[in-house]
Amino acid sequence: MRNVALKLGCTLIEDAFAEAFPMVFSRLIVTALDDHWLQAAVREMTGYSSSVIACDLECGVEEWLTPDRTPDGRPGASLLAFGFSAKSLEAAIPNRAGQCIMTCPTTALYDGLPMASRRIALGKHLRYFGDGFQKAKRLGGRRFWRVPVMDGEFIVDDRAGIESGVGGGNILIQAVGLHEALHAARRAICVLDSLPGVITPFPGGVARSGSKVGSRYPKLKASTADAYCPTLRGRTETRIAERAECVLEIVIDGQNEATVGHAMRVAAIAAAGDGVVALSAGNYGGKLGKFHFHLHELLRSS
Amino acid sequence: MRNVALKLGCTLIEDAFAEAFPMVFSRLIVTALDDHWLQAAVREMTGYSSSVIACDLECGVEEWLTPDRTPDGRPGASLLAFGFSAKSLEAAIPNRAGQCIMTCPTTALYDGLPMASRRIALGKHLRYFGDGFQKAKRLGGRRFWRVPVMDGEFIVDDRAGIESGVGGGNILIQAVGLHEALHAARRAICVLDSLPGVITPFPGGVARSGSKVGSRYPKLKASTADAYCPTLRGRTETRIAERAECVLEIVIDGQNEATVGHAMRVAAIAAAGDGVVALSAGNYGGKLGKFHFHLHELLRSS
Amino acid sequence: MRNVALKLGCTLIEDAFAEAFPMVFSRLIVTALDDHWLQAAVREMTGYSSSVIACDLECGVEEWLTPDRTPDGRPGASLLAFGFSAKSLEAAIPNRAGQCIMTCPTTALYDGLPMASRRIALGKHLRYFGDGFQKAKRLGGRRFWRVPVMDGEFIVDDRAGIESGVGGGNILIQAVGLHEALHAARRAICVLDSLPGVITPFPGGVARSGSKVGSRYPKLKASTADAYCPTLRGRTETRIAERAECVLEIVIDGQNEATVGHAMRVAAIAAAGDGVVALSAGNYGGKLGKFHFHLHELLRSS
Amino acid sequence: MRNVALKLGCTLIEDAFAEAFPMVFSRLIVTALDDHWLQAAVREMTGYSSSVIACDLECGVEEWLTPDRTPDGRPGASLLAFGFSAKSLEAAIPNRAGQCIMTCPTTALYDGLPMASRRIALGKHLRYFGDGFQKAKRLGGRRFWRVPVMDGEFIVDDRAGIESGVGGGNILIQAVGLHEALHAARRAICVLDSLPGVITPFPGGVARSGSKVGSRYPKLKASTADAYCPTLRGRTETRIAERAECVLEIVIDGQNEATVGHAMRVAAIAAAGDGVVALSAGNYGGKLGKFHFHLHELLRSS
Repeated sequence: MRNVALKLGCTLIEDAFAEAFPMVFSRLIVTALDDHWLQAAVREMTGYSSSVIACDLECGVEEWLTPDRTPDGRPGASLLAFGFSAKSLEAAIPNRAGQCIMTCPTTALYDGLPMASRRIALGKHLRYFGDGFQKAKRLGGRRFWRVPVMDGEFIVDDRAGIESGVGGGNILIQAVGLHEALHAARRAICVLDSLPGVITPFPGGVARSGSKVGSRYPKLKASTADAYCPTLRGRTETRIAERAECVLEIVIDGQNEATVGHAMRVAAIAAAGDGVVALSAGNYGGKLGKFHFHLHELLRSS
Repeated sequence: MRNVALKLGCTLIEDAFAEAFPMVFSRLIVTALDDHWLQAAVREMTGYSSSVIACDLECGVEEWLTPDRTPDGRPGASLLAFGFSAKSLEAAIPNRAGQCIMTCPTTALYDGLPMASRRIALGKHLRYFGDGFQKAKRLGGRRFWRVPVMDGEFIVDDRAGIESGVGGGNILIQAVGLHEALHAARRAICVLDSLPGVITPFPGGVARSGSKVGSRYPKLKASTADAYCPTLRGRTETRIAERAECVLEIVIDGQNEATVGHAMRVAAIAAAGDGVVALSAGNYGGKLGKFHFHLHELLRSS
Repeated sequence: MRNVALKLGCTLIEDAFAEAFPMVFSRLIVTALDDHWLQAAVREMTGYSSSVIACDLECGVEEWLTPDRTPDGRPGASLLAFGFSAKSLEAAIPNRAGQCIMTCPTTALYDGLPMASRRIALGKHLRYFGDGFQKAKRLGGRRFWRVPVMDGEFIVDDRAGIESGVGGGNILIQAVGLHEALHAARRAICVLDSLPGVITPFPGGVARSGSKVGSRYPKLKASTADAYCPTLRGRTETRIAERAECVLEIVIDGQNEATVGHAMRVAAIAAAGDGVVALSAGNYGGKLGKFHFHLHELLRSS
Repeated sequence: MRNVALKLGCTLIEDAFAEAFPMVFSRLIVTALDDHWLQAAVREMTGYSSSVIACDLECGVEEWLTPDRTPDGRPGASLLAFGFSAKSLEAAIPNRAGQCIMTCPTTALYDGLPMASRRIALGKHLRYFGDGFQKAKRLGGRRFWRVPVMDGEFIVDDRAGIESGVGGGNILIQAVGLHEALHAARRAICVLDSLPGVITPFPGGVARSGSKVGSRYPKLKASTADAYCPTLRGRTETRIAERAECVLEIVIDGQNEATVGHAMRVAAIAAAGDGVVALSAGNYGGKLGKFHFHLHELLRSS
């Protein structure tokens, strides 16, 4: 029967859908001598990358890799970088990599999509930093560059594969208070942290400044999602569930529709719990984004 | 006598100078409910900001602030953001803050240079995200904005002060091996971490891809500092000290000449030690940068 | 119907029960000036406390507390410490607190069970360190001690409440490989991290050296759970699920039976997933421990 | 001339000595699959080990080891564990290792003093946990045990070397306020972190509850160092420097007298600075401890 409320424990699952968009992405494998320098490189590379609305790409850690799972047997991380086009990725990735990875002691940078047919320049651009002293190296059909730097050589793949992906999957956590919302969000994030194929690009994985399309200022294309702002309850048409006093959003970019849907599902299951009144999802009416993820479909199929 | 070698323990201090540049900077105070979200915001805000050569600004943590030292009694961080002009800061800072701080649960953002006479827009721009629901608030002669977001309100100063500073102070650590160089660099960074008035914008505070001006490729304005690349020893005129096999650079931006000089001095003292053959400093011949920091002067005055 | 297999996604839930024991516990609230010193104190206090088989108590972080939730408005942590008797807690807790909390800069230590009728000495013992200079202080019906130390005063509750609890709830994660088992365990631990009323006392929350009662050496009361050791598959009667090659255990101590059962349930839901063949639970035949947690009951009631 | 004040910048170096004691120590190398589990094991193993006054040993991280520096090519840590006798180490170390390392997923445990002629049992005791399924393994003249556990095998050296060391080297930081003292202490600790041959066993490396021998309570052998408690200035014969309002102690255990002296020296250099009025050292009159480290001698020889 359609009208029976769907619940995860005490948490209501609203009959809502997340609206997501076609994007392209690259997977970059960063390695370093030890965890200290790996973290330093990853922190630099994944900063200022929460949303392509105003950042050059959306970038985050897909997985931390133990040494047995990296190309050079060192600790590593798999990063996913999403953009709206191959062109935007080709502009952003080599520049970021040059500033954030090449600069960082002991790091190397590998293509994480070697089988992808679409490819952008990576080392192909960065190698010029070597001022003619760089050397090409062929290994297993792949071309690498060895760029001389002050701690030795920076190893980087000539090119990086890109593939089609999905950006903007999301869930909205509505809780009785800030404390409960933050706990629920952190539960969801830590479950997503080990899930391959997805990233959560916002700070700590969470966005609190949800947005709607448009604003009363002509120049501004997006503005606060007033319907989800608890302080605006009396001044705007609210969509906040009764008893909820705080809303947080988890935005998920992933390698395909199935992965994003699965991630939304496990995030919802982890986020539900005491003090979480309802889970919802954000959309723009359904006309902007090609992908629609209905919470009820995701959670009924479990 | 001029020619007596200057040493810190077993480490030779070369008679070299760092060449640094006039920059402008802003100090931003970020606070959050707890350390988890503070770190999330700071990580996002200070990423992709190692060098203004290819980043929109150079940004890092000046100091972590205990709750008794922040405007709202919460844990905080003081960030310094350096650019080449007020204009570049005014373009970069509100955009970054909107993507990295405003989005992050529980954060607030304050001007850390309230006495500065030169000021750029901060909340003045960001407030529009509130879509008309934002409210101005005056407190102690300062104007703040309260922008409604999904976890409550984002508090942000209307404007941020800017001041003249110095970018590009540096020391070069030359060690017998990678291991020794990394240890020396980490000692220097951790001493700099608690020093007010300076940041070290590179990943983990350290740059391994030192550069020289120009390259053999006409389009590229900077390329690898081949004179400091150990793998190029036989192929270029090296400046690496005998017995050294690894070089790392610590780049320091600071609020004025005295602060940068002091920071170079304490960094040098911390970096010197077993396995560190020599300390040097990087310059471009002295004609590009207005500030010259001579290692011998800095270390003899101690 | 009894014989239909219970599954969470692709993960089989074995029809097994965890056998747990009556214990007593205390809740201690540690606060510090900032997160750095809070972490330092908590790390010291919660080390060497994985199992009362050979440690003086089982101790872990129940929750990290934001400043608005602690007695003195500083960042804090709620610790739970479990022992077999009030007497063992009264021996272990003041000694640990004196070595691990009182020594740590800026900390204070509060009773987290002020309503409990059974109470042990806390500051009542520690105060003597003050050598007569300590001062009693009454606040809201509670008695505190102000012990003079080199950074000011150490504030500590005179007594700490104790209550009956449950130790030894557990789930066994059986995965196709080490990698999958570790990921599943970390998912479970991070969901448990925000759950009030429970701790997971083993390193990182996880035990890999599961034990059985007794051994072939008369003096040794416990030995490796050979039935769950993958390398012993051919040499002992194994209980490892087919296709599983790695087993990890999550041990849960909690404030009562309901809380431990709930925690086992959410841990199981978080741990299930790709590569996790089966979830089970550990017991000693059912005659040793008073509490039996049947996985099927816990997971069917959801 | 003897009476000229010795200063490091603005910080007075008092003419004081640290009184330290003969101890014995063992070096243990812990490795794990990745940094996450390494940290988990080290945290468990090095907790509750600040002082042998009331802990079974004093244990801390000597160095973090990159994979190229460990016996099995995995990330590792070198731990030093100090006790008053070989007997106390042989009682404490296997018990701790069994609870804190053997239990922790993916870890292995190696003797870090293989050339030492004095040796205690390590795997020799722990192997019995294997219940007869354990296997001996000889490699390069060393005997290891392979103990079957649920994630595979726990590899552990049969024995661990022990050597004579020095416990209780220290400096006392006297600053104008808590903030300045904490910063100075953290500078010192981070420089000591990369120094081989020493540990700083207190929480975060720092002790704020300095003690004197004896108390007015007959049973208590040690009590607060009232001479260094700022709140007792008017009530006791203070030794706190004028203008200082906060004192913190850094206690250093090391492998021999030279190493401890060197560590005290680099700690003093790092701690000195603005807001640090004076550096001193703690002793018991000089009759209890065999080793006397005079600050002036350490710092004049630089």
